[in-house]
Amino acid sequence: MSDQQTSARRQLNLNLFIYPGGHHEAAWRYKDSDLEHLLDIGYYIDLARQAEAAKFDGIFFADGPALADNIRYASRFRLEPLTWLSAIAAATQRIGLIATASTTYYEPYNLARLFASLDHISKGRAGWNIVTTGAEQAAANFGLASHPAHSERYSRAREFVEVIGKLWDSWEDGAIVADRASGVFADTDKIHTIDHIGRYFNVRGPFNSPRTPQGRPVYVQAGSSADGRAFAAQYAEAIFTAHQTLSNAQEFYKDIKTQARSLGRNPDHVKVLPGISPFIGATEAQARALYDEFNELTQPAYSLGLLSRLLGVDVSGYDIDAPFPREIIPAEGERTVASRFKVVVDIIERENPTIRQLTHRLAGARGHWVAVGTPEQIADNIQTWFENGAADGFNVMPPWLTGGFDIFAQEVVPILRRRGLFREEYTGTTLREHYGLPRPESRFSFPVRETA
Amino acid sequence: MSDQQTSARRQLNLNLFIYPGGHHEAAWRYKDSDLEHLLDIGYYIDLARQAEAAKFDGIFFADGPALADNIRYASRFRLEPLTWLSAIAAATQRIGLIATASTTYYEPYNLARLFASLDHISKGRAGWNIVTTGAEQAAANFGLASHPAHSERYSRAREFVEVIGKLWDSWEDGAIVADRASGVFADTDKIHTIDHIGRYFNVRGPFNSPRTPQGRPVYVQAGSSADGRAFAAQYAEAIFTAHQTLSNAQEFYKDIKTQARSLGRNPDHVKVLPGISPFIGATEAQARALYDEFNELTQPAYSLGLLSRLLGVDVSGYDIDAPFPREIIPAEGERTVASRFKVVVDIIERENPTIRQLTHRLAGARGHWVAVGTPEQIADNIQTWFENGAADGFNVMPPWLTGGFDIFAQEVVPILRRRGLFREEYTGTTLREHYGLPRPESRFSFPVRETA
Repeated sequence: MSDQQTSARRQLNLNLFIYPGGHHEAAWRYKDSDLEHLLDIGYYIDLARQAEAAKFDGIFFADGPALADNIRYASRFRLEPLTWLSAIAAATQRIGLIATASTTYYEPYNLARLFASLDHISKGRAGWNIVTTGAEQAAANFGLASHPAHSERYSRAREFVEVIGKLWDSWEDGAIVADRASGVFADTDKIHTIDHIGRYFNVRGPFNSPRTPQGRPVYVQAGSSADGRAFAAQYAEAIFTAHQTLSNAQEFYKDIKTQARSLGRNPDHVKVLPGISPFIGATEAQARALYDEFNELTQPAYSLGLLSRLLGVDVSGYDIDAPFPREIIPAEGERTVASRFKVVVDIIERENPTIRQLTHRLAGARGHWVAVGTPEQIADNIQTWFENGAADGFNVMPPWLTGGFDIFAQEVVPILRRRGLFREEYTGTTLREHYGLPRPESRFSFPVRETA
Repeated sequence: MSDQQTSARRQLNLNLFIYPGGHHEAAWRYKDSDLEHLLDIGYYIDLARQAEAAKFDGIFFADGPALADNIRYASRFRLEPLTWLSAIAAATQRIGLIATASTTYYEPYNLARLFASLDHISKGRAGWNIVTTGAEQAAANFGLASHPAHSERYSRAREFVEVIGKLWDSWEDGAIVADRASGVFADTDKIHTIDHIGRYFNVRGPFNSPRTPQGRPVYVQAGSSADGRAFAAQYAEAIFTAHQTLSNAQEFYKDIKTQARSLGRNPDHVKVLPGISPFIGATEAQARALYDEFNELTQPAYSLGLLSRLLGVDVSGYDIDAPFPREIIPAEGERTVASRFKVVVDIIERENPTIRQLTHRLAGARGHWVAVGTPEQIADNIQTWFENGAADGFNVMPPWLTGGFDIFAQEVVPILRRRGLFREEYTGTTLREHYGLPRPESRFSFPVRETA
């Protein structure tokens, strides 16, 4: 690869994916990770400002309404994304703010309010990572006898997105008149009940605050099952995905874009953003040593639990240094996250690892792509995926924070910029503008069309 | 009253109660109100910083998960308090942040997360105004055939507070160990399932993030019905209340403190904070002129709707300038807010107003005490209530913003300070410390006591 300018038109979209302490499961044990400030908003504001200084599109928080297993061995508590990002919004100007929230465990009216606020507070920088929640233990926190089945969760998710979209549309642009003289504050002809009656939700509306700067938050999705891909192709404007190989990423990319096109959508308005967890060194050997150093900090009690969860089968009790016993791999079930199940099985088939080696492959980013190399090599990898139909950009998942992001921003981003692959400066102020997405009109702004 | 120092021990608690544009129903029409920034977080941050500069205990946002009637005539949209206050938390250091949220229309696990975050983000400044939601139209936004009855809502509220308290206690202090060498991140003996099984909620827990700086947010409540008072006496650490006369406020104050004492609580840990909406002028005549100027901006289409809602009967269709037709006053029903119903009936009985006069009496603060006078007179009123068993402090409800608060902070607060009634400087960093409330221990921190 050369530093020569490539076609300047298409550029990478880059998000910083934030986990408290970092993405590697042993990040908190690493000598340079920040262990003192994991509940300090100032620490996260600094991170967001660093990402903004690097002209990243957005920052992103994952979420789940339950305590992760094995909190004993890793910093796997949860920061509630909507409040946390609202605080960050007040301390930043340009960076997008993407919060994960569950359609299975929220009410649409409440969630509509939280996201609308984030979009107002940030003046148009909110994104919603739409999840149906994979963690079965969430059900018991919400009075459910069991976690709803995968297809049931997606069915509810579809209706949820329809309802919440109607709520966000229920105030048209310009509904606030605020004419002191006439005494009219709002033009109520531009505020609509939504009168939604469905299988999961009955919601009358209207919403209780004005239309947001972006019309609605950017819709983000991360499903990779058949249901998940179909959902993403229909609704998502950005897709977070996990792939270990170029060819798998290409297959996913092509499938999503094709499905989106067949639904009448502009495929450029569906950004595919795989995760990448970069271990960066001045030499490849140094990068490898860093990666090994992290893996030496892993603990089987944690790692085997993660592997068991991703595969949907208990892997404890086997010789950790013997080749993975393939006979225990279950048929793909709904109890695992489809994309990660596939990632793990692919690694087993491709690399024939021991159980320990397999846990190390997953320790960095739970199945996301771990890239180990020099800044040039990382940049080459990114460019290859970007220019060969595998990615529109990346979700950067630093192994540890804040250092793991500093290195990426200082060493890799300038290379991408020299190659014309990433912006020098923001050209817009909203997340939609960063991603090159249109601002949707309210569905109530159009006259109702009569069917002949 | 004199400016002489009174006993320095007991001091007022003062909150700034924020409505977009101000509390008077015609605030937005007033020439000096800020109409351009009602959705601008910077405007609210400035207000919070002004309240902090005045050493107020907290700022407070009301809420309701439905659009208010008559948005056509007033700025009665809703700012979602938890996100809005999270943003403000990032831009302030000391001021308390009190958010209203409904036990009828939230799930405990979700609400526990939002408030815990606010307490973490603000480093111990969160308060929860616990409401059961009065607005019937909320039900239709959550798939309910009808708004639950008053007693049913309070029954759910009690269980809700029990559940959410257990969730907040489920991580004991010190559960995070974060010992890099041993690899133990959390001491799981200090993280507990709550295994709540009740009439309204089944919640297993544990919570998914660590115990908050205050242990839990300060519990605030505003009910004035028999159910509401009993609830407040049991749970509330601060009570927002509406009274028009010293004697009514004294009756309420005495009742609450007596009930709290009879439940074994320290009555000093139940702060009674009536609302006060001050119209301030250099002379009494100027204050009166300001008050009249606001009332001239009211619109019957809005005012009659509010009055009808507070009384629980349609008052339109009567001569607006004839004395209020007492025969239409309904028996106290559950469809109105008990405290406001009583306030309105008391005014009618005391003052025999016309309908228009009555609407003007309510336009300032929806039934809260509207005080009209010079800074000295306002301070005298406050001191009288404070020193005569009617109030521990006040919820200041400026008629318009930001000017209506500026005047209070600049003209009234210094008088209170000279009289030794209000702090010169913060002595603590948390809302609990401002209010003089203890930090609760986790209920799981005590060994289980065996019953003999």
